[in-house]
Amino acid sequence: MNVLAAIDSFKGSASSVELNQAVLNGWMTNGKKSNQPIADGGEGTTEAIYHTLGGEWKKVQGMDLLFRQKESRYLVTMYNHKKIAIIESAEVVGIDLLSKPTDQTIRLASSFGLGELIKDAIKQQPDEIIIALGGSGCSDGGLGLLQSLGATLVGVTEGNPLLSVKELDLHTLMPITTKLTIASDVTSPYTGELGAALLFGTQKGGTPDTLAFLDQQAKSIVDQIKTSQSLDLDDLPGSGAAGGIGGALFLLGATMQSGFQLVAELVGLEEQVKEADIIVTGEGRIDQQTIHGKVPYGVALLAKKHHKKIIGICGSREKELGELTRFLPSIFSIQFGPITLAEAMDPHETLEKVQLLSTALSHLFTNEFS
Amino acid sequence: MNVLAAIDSFKGSASSVELNQAVLNGWMTNGKKSNQPIADGGEGTTEAIYHTLGGEWKKVQGMDLLFRQKESRYLVTMYNHKKIAIIESAEVVGIDLLSKPTDQTIRLASSFGLGELIKDAIKQQPDEIIIALGGSGCSDGGLGLLQSLGATLVGVTEGNPLLSVKELDLHTLMPITTKLTIASDVTSPYTGELGAALLFGTQKGGTPDTLAFLDQQAKSIVDQIKTSQSLDLDDLPGSGAAGGIGGALFLLGATMQSGFQLVAELVGLEEQVKEADIIVTGEGRIDQQTIHGKVPYGVALLAKKHHKKIIGICGSREKELGELTRFLPSIFSIQFGPITLAEAMDPHETLEKVQLLSTALSHLFTNEFS
Repeated sequence: MNVLAAIDSFKGSASSVELNQAVLNGWMTNGKKSNQPIADGGEGTTEAIYHTLGGEWKKVQGMDLLFRQKESRYLVTMYNHKKIAIIESAEVVGIDLLSKPTDQTIRLASSFGLGELIKDAIKQQPDEIIIALGGSGCSDGGLGLLQSLGATLVGVTEGNPLLSVKELDLHTLMPITTKLTIASDVTSPYTGELGAALLFGTQKGGTPDTLAFLDQQAKSIVDQIKTSQSLDLDDLPGSGAAGGIGGALFLLGATMQSGFQLVAELVGLEEQVKEADIIVTGEGRIDQQTIHGKVPYGVALLAKKHHKKIIGICGSREKELGELTRFLPSIFSIQFGPITLAEAMDPHETLEKVQLLSTALSHLFTNEFS
Repeated sequence: MNVLAAIDSFKGSASSVELNQAVLNGWMTNGKKSNQPIADGGEGTTEAIYHTLGGEWKKVQGMDLLFRQKESRYLVTMYNHKKIAIIESAEVVGIDLLSKPTDQTIRLASSFGLGELIKDAIKQQPDEIIIALGGSGCSDGGLGLLQSLGATLVGVTEGNPLLSVKELDLHTLMPITTKLTIASDVTSPYTGELGAALLFGTQKGGTPDTLAFLDQQAKSIVDQIKTSQSLDLDDLPGSGAAGGIGGALFLLGATMQSGFQLVAELVGLEEQVKEADIIVTGEGRIDQQTIHGKVPYGVALLAKKHHKKIIGICGSREKELGELTRFLPSIFSIQFGPITLAEAMDPHETLEKVQLLSTALSHLFTNEFS
């Protein structure tokens, strides 16, 4: 019996490769055990790709979303004889870089630093740059990013450029010929109720007044782009991703792909699935969002396609999972009993419990007693 | 695929029959589903037997361990053409009847009320009386019980008779011809470091001084019995059960059987195991005590004997389970994620989570994908 472990990182607790190894350490079998690091474009994406494809980490001395000095990194690797750079945007504009997201941070935060990373990656002359969006702490419509790549923002003072921008001039943008690919599963438009500011701004600390103003400013950007580029940002699903960075990247000619699909292709997940009998996937929390492009859903679809047994593990799960249970009917929490969230996040404990759960599960597939 | 559910009650949360039903509701199979209520001589013992054998509940207006008025009940039922009375001692002397066990409660508590229940049961003229020990809050060496059945306790004033007794005279005991069987897995002697007072007294609230004095008094009882009955209570494993009630019942001619074995026999568990393919057992907490005669261990032994697949479920489990994992390698907690103990005890939530876990497990045995 061949077992494949392909679990997303448990955010803030354990990495994909560690969780997979814990599953494989615990699983009792004489068959082949495969550890396939995986991600969905969020935290751990470059890490998962690095573990499979190798490559070189490039370090950039730049600024984070609050313009604080920060060393960030991205990956340059080869895939199908092509040179690819992979940037995880959370490295520079991640919400986890803020001790606490507040109205003040959203009014200060800019995507400028991400533009600097992209510029550095362009210098490596790759065939393609993949920018994994997800977990951003800014909501600047991607204007900071555009500014760093040469766009002129008229009227902009300090902090979040979307607050003060009067006019956006793209004529001064540096020429970019590198293929740009966004890895994201967000389909939100640039503005409106489902747009960057109003849908995601609250969790980034924005007050209703700030968010309404940001949305109004973004609408003015949409109007300007309509005129100057004959392009309606609000017609492009995903332009509202990462506080509008999606839209800014579209203006640079980027296309968008599902984060999971992209990572799965790069790491050759489907081939691994074909060779396995049982596949263990999972993520820190399995909930009603999981079906929207998260790792466990993506892995479960591949398992179903190839008629393989699929098991999901998690730190916690939502009771009601709706349609997801059709694809992932066997979900298990690693918890042993009542425990606080802080205790449950302990990396060592997490991996130990994953291993014990794995052993318990593996024995269900043996013929030891039956 | 036939599924048998035989889970011990989750103490303070859900009964055996409820937990079994939740498992069977959740399990996806076209095979036979069997609900076998089970217990190990502790809480839920008479309930489990009643659900299988039926019978009549007898109510007694008597006193609890603190001599407070309490209506208690026991079961009279038929088994193999014999009339059997089953008394759960925790009904009258249970530690859960105390809001908080303290040194004061251990100095007041007596097993007198249990004797009254036994007297009432004798009047029903059964072929056998089974007394399930476990969870007692008193530590009176069983003297209260003996007193209620006619023994003379010289020097006894109020409260725990073991504190004040000077002499025990068994000549005045009522004649008992009914077969008495103790259901217990405790093997402690009447006195000493592993005896009733010193080993179990702390959890019943006793201070070291009180417990040392109780042990000293119990030693004097052992000496008196040696002289009067040519019997060494400390040579009888289990005489220290339930604060010494075990020893008192031995003096009445009782024999002791493992609680689980006894219940398993009465409810015909082994026959059910033979007919099942998969057996789900469990208890509220699976820990290093489980191997000492608890339900999951007993059920697992039967499953192993008949080469059946066995699964254990629990509210919480200890990480290290030692030898138990050889017999019960697949143990799963029903928790979905971080949760407080109080929340986890909610009966409705418990049963819902058991059902969902059961569904998740059952899908591992289907050929749906493979």
